[in-house]
Amino acid sequence: MKSLGAKTLVYPAPVLVVGSYDAAGRPNAMTAAWAGVACSKPPCVSVSLRAATASHRNIMTRRAFTISLPGRDHVAQADYFGMVSGRDTDKFAATGLTPVAAEFVDAPYVGEFRLVLECQVVAVHELGLHTQFVGEVKDAKVDESCLDHRGWIDVAKLDPIAWAIEPGGYFALGPLIGKGQSIGRAFAAPEAHTETGQF
Amino acid sequence: MKSLGAKTLVYPAPVLVVGSYDAAGRPNAMTAAWAGVACSKPPCVSVSLRAATASHRNIMTRRAFTISLPGRDHVAQADYFGMVSGRDTDKFAATGLTPVAAEFVDAPYVGEFRLVLECQVVAVHELGLHTQFVGEVKDAKVDESCLDHRGWIDVAKLDPIAWAIEPGGYFALGPLIGKGQSIGRAFAAPEAHTETGQF
Repeated sequence: MKSLGAKTLVYPAPVLVVGSYDAAGRPNAMTAAWAGVACSKPPCVSVSLRAATASHRNIMTRRAFTISLPGRDHVAQADYFGMVSGRDTDKFAATGLTPVAAEFVDAPYVGEFRLVLECQVVAVHELGLHTQFVGEVKDAKVDESCLDHRGWIDVAKLDPIAWAIEPGGYFALGPLIGKGQSIGRAFAAPEAHTETGQF
Repeated sequence: MKSLGAKTLVYPAPVLVVGSYDAAGRPNAMTAAWAGVACSKPPCVSVSLRAATASHRNIMTRRAFTISLPGRDHVAQADYFGMVSGRDTDKFAATGLTPVAAEFVDAPYVGEFRLVLECQVVAVHELGLHTQFVGEVKDAKVDESCLDHRGWIDVAKLDPIAWAIEPGGYFALGPLIGKGQSIGRAFAAPEAHTETGQF
């Protein structure tokens, strides 16, 4: 094994567009990849943003944000949302995407994206360059085209994208390679205690 | 858009094997997907675990953990590591994988996996069912077979896997669909202010 030094090499990272309003009520959207699920009960996600960003200031003020998940068809818009600042750019106008007011929190989401989480800030952790916002998910909304016949999310239809920090690119998801709590049984003794599968 | 209620639907989630020692020095490994990068400087990752797990107790005691990233070739072992508890099972023995002592922190990693992060706990956040451990990355180690001719990580050779919470499966990564800080330029005016690309 070769040492690469102290680097945050987590693969894959999600690509999440964080929606917020500024003090004047103008919608902003910023792409974040330093993020993930933080807790199952209450359902929480965490998103880390630099204090220099307009979104950071917005979320500190409004205590709310949304996450809109770009699909493969919106990867260029997602990249753009991470390239320019909402301080001097109306990113919705520049991309032609639509800010929609969330139902349960004080933040906008991207109307054209297929999955949205509405989040209320429940904790703010200053970690260094980044501030980690923990948001309790108040509602998840999905485009009905992404549901299968059982009403469950069909990942192929959602078609999410992943970020690879090095060398710095967006990747599509590939095929299903195994079911959870299933393919690992090959290693379990018949009498093994199995947990519930809750991460 | 159809409301699905308060669910932590983040796609994709990473599949990370968390390594720790118990009080007697026995190595344990547990798969976690509620995790992600938390900060760039200092370089930090966060991993959320339930208090009921053996790994939670280990990390509270030792204040250190590793992250070993399973590739597609180890998806069954990763699934198994999330199915059984280290309280009553030697998961390394059951899978034939090798616990290796980390170089900089008091925790073991999985010797056969191609990417490892060595993490010192710098914050512990009680969020509810899950405790979020923030670990400062002290070193990242990679198998040299995963480096390209420039010495950068080749994602195809690393071949990481992703977790989809619903319907509960492991996915391979697909093709590169765009370079970061690049494909978004289509939307930028020539004079647009661009940020540095640091998430």
